[in-house]
Amino acid sequence: MNGTKSEELALLGGPKAVTVEGKERWPVPTDRIKAKICELIDKGVFWEAGTGISLELERRLAFYIGTKYCLSQNNGTSALWAAYYAIGVGPGDEVLHPAYTFIASIAPAVHLGARPVFCEIDPKTLTIDPADMERRITSRTKAVSVVHIHGNVCDMDAIIAVAERHRLALIEDCSHSLGGEWDGRKLGSIGSVGCFSMQGGPLDGKPLPAGEGGFITTNRRELYERILFFGHLNRAGLADMFSNPLYREMAPTNSGLKFRPHPWAMAMALVMQESLDERNRQRRMYREKIYSGLSGVPGISTVHDHAKATPAGFYGGMHFIYKPNELGGLPLGRFLKALQAEGVLLYRWNYGLTHRLRIFARGFDLYDRGGPLTGDYPGYAEGTLPVTEGVHSRIFGMPTFINEAPNYSDQVIAAFKKVIGRYDRLLWLERLAKRVSPSQL
Amino acid sequence: MNGTKSEELALLGGPKAVTVEGKERWPVPTDRIKAKICELIDKGVFWEAGTGISLELERRLAFYIGTKYCLSQNNGTSALWAAYYAIGVGPGDEVLHPAYTFIASIAPAVHLGARPVFCEIDPKTLTIDPADMERRITSRTKAVSVVHIHGNVCDMDAIIAVAERHRLALIEDCSHSLGGEWDGRKLGSIGSVGCFSMQGGPLDGKPLPAGEGGFITTNRRELYERILFFGHLNRAGLADMFSNPLYREMAPTNSGLKFRPHPWAMAMALVMQESLDERNRQRRMYREKIYSGLSGVPGISTVHDHAKATPAGFYGGMHFIYKPNELGGLPLGRFLKALQAEGVLLYRWNYGLTHRLRIFARGFDLYDRGGPLTGDYPGYAEGTLPVTEGVHSRIFGMPTFINEAPNYSDQVIAAFKKVIGRYDRLLWLERLAKRVSPSQL
Repeated sequence: MNGTKSEELALLGGPKAVTVEGKERWPVPTDRIKAKICELIDKGVFWEAGTGISLELERRLAFYIGTKYCLSQNNGTSALWAAYYAIGVGPGDEVLHPAYTFIASIAPAVHLGARPVFCEIDPKTLTIDPADMERRITSRTKAVSVVHIHGNVCDMDAIIAVAERHRLALIEDCSHSLGGEWDGRKLGSIGSVGCFSMQGGPLDGKPLPAGEGGFITTNRRELYERILFFGHLNRAGLADMFSNPLYREMAPTNSGLKFRPHPWAMAMALVMQESLDERNRQRRMYREKIYSGLSGVPGISTVHDHAKATPAGFYGGMHFIYKPNELGGLPLGRFLKALQAEGVLLYRWNYGLTHRLRIFARGFDLYDRGGPLTGDYPGYAEGTLPVTEGVHSRIFGMPTFINEAPNYSDQVIAAFKKVIGRYDRLLWLERLAKRVSPSQL
Repeated sequence: MNGTKSEELALLGGPKAVTVEGKERWPVPTDRIKAKICELIDKGVFWEAGTGISLELERRLAFYIGTKYCLSQNNGTSALWAAYYAIGVGPGDEVLHPAYTFIASIAPAVHLGARPVFCEIDPKTLTIDPADMERRITSRTKAVSVVHIHGNVCDMDAIIAVAERHRLALIEDCSHSLGGEWDGRKLGSIGSVGCFSMQGGPLDGKPLPAGEGGFITTNRRELYERILFFGHLNRAGLADMFSNPLYREMAPTNSGLKFRPHPWAMAMALVMQESLDERNRQRRMYREKIYSGLSGVPGISTVHDHAKATPAGFYGGMHFIYKPNELGGLPLGRFLKALQAEGVLLYRWNYGLTHRLRIFARGFDLYDRGGPLTGDYPGYAEGTLPVTEGVHSRIFGMPTFINEAPNYSDQVIAAFKKVIGRYDRLLWLERLAKRVSPSQL
């Protein structure tokens, strides 16, 4: 290890290991976004239904993901909603979900009447464990909904094998991972349907940020038509897009719902799309640099990428799993405080345990009519998913950077090594803390 | 009548009655909209959840409408969806709707499982007929959903009396009529919930256009909380907004759905709100001028405003009901062609007969699981709602203007009088048409 090891921890008055500010240096194309939107306003484009900017974006994304069809939506939730509708999820069905994800990945299926069944995650990748998933399949299982969380790619070979063996529809929630690949194929082109959120801003948002927005990809004509039918009311030329004669007859009102996005949001996404691959590459390199710099260091492990996986997007940052038993039982909170004192920008932020949210842990009558989370819904007590719960309490994250400040990552690595190398000082502090008032520490 | 009466119809080679172009002269505040959005982008505002611009707009609109609560939504459909959810509409319920409206007013209730029951409209106002509405109430009726269509105000005294007599929730769809009043109270503050679309652009969109957007108003705390719970995931400070302890426990994920609008759309609405009253006043004056100029003219009647009503918004324009029996049975199509030939800008555009849309006329299994439009759903054959069908085939419309070109309305009135005064010429043409090939006429 390096020279900083012998220095006192910053938490205890020593010098900070990180002296460079970790602020993102990638220049947000603010002027281009503004120009594109102002151009639309000057042209009088305030909304679109399957034309103009939105259609252009859909075509580019279908090409990029490598699917026959792509439809823009007003957010990722509505993308998932339409996807669940398309595959026919409804009352009496069960859908398999990872126990570690964002609620929006699950909620639309529940609102369609399906019961969520939560599966363990693989502690090495933080994504759904295909073996555990398969164990939870029943005669009522209709679909598997997997999430490439924080850009970490699911084990798609194993997942596809399970889905095919049991003839289940497969939804890929790629909201965090746009641009990622499995065995050379883009995420979102592998399952029955790919769903993407475009929520957020250029630096902290989804990989292709639009403020609010989303999109869906599929290769299957019947799913494309059902997505159109569900939420693309009044889309231009709609009747001609339907091969289903009944849908054709019902166009353009369709099912009466409208999920189309704001064209200005799509304009922002178009501008951001130009830099998508570059941003992904840079963030991936940054993550790689930190991960390999900390490889083999005691006390932490980094998220594992499958050999066939190209991770991307990294929404929510890069993650570590803390191993307190390798550091004398040092609590995670103290460990993170020491890193932060060294000047490392990190957060304990991650999604809560999904199955332990009040709505799923104890069930809830969403519509005051019973429904999938009532009756014989088992709920999820603490300890129901021990693997996920065990790893979840030890996850912490750091932002990835597109264009880091010079030496920032080197200093971050050094800070980790310094803190880990002197964990005995933190254990001493921990013992001391038990004897004195907490406010003094 | 005036001098143009004796001149030949433009359709038959005579001079046009309208020589002024009817183009809108009101200056769209394009620069202010662009500036407001660019300001947000410069500040890094790409999304908001209950803060900033969206919160400011909600507060202004609550004050404007005169309700305790207002929540912004991503479109009018989701506003209606949340409203139907809030009042507890679901499977087994019936909801009363006018047979002449846009499908988005109805579809969310159907997607929640309720069966639509279509009611006749009053041919004088084009809005729901309260007496017919009351006749259709059964033990399953849960709510009445009325639409102030094209800005024409429903007979709210009669509607409220029916709703109260039968203890029904009352939804006001004010998408076309923002700023309108009944007896001095703003539309959207009278029923249980007011729903508003903000779809469209500054000249052809809803009264408060945002490209895509919507909002909901209510005075009832429990409905406000249910709207928040249904679709306002991750709204800032959410837990503290709930008096319901269960909702408080479930915040900020709530029911897992997200219906929030794009902040740039809300920025546009904020700019447009400054001119809302002025635009409404000008359009109302224009409509009044044309209506009074054509008062008592044979062959057409204008939409009637109730004494307590202040119409506003006028989305979809101003409307007339054609009375062919007063013009020797002259078909509407020929009549409109003659007016257009005179240079009158008009359209036969109006919503289709809602109950005669395929989905409602014959029923449809939306979720492949049965549902409200299957089983004993009666459907609506032609002739089921004779009053609405009778008037619907005779409706035609014209745009209203905020700032008309000088003399345009006078020339329009003259054109109507000219065509109506020489309807014998059109009848002659009609008789001739029956003897020669249609392409020659």
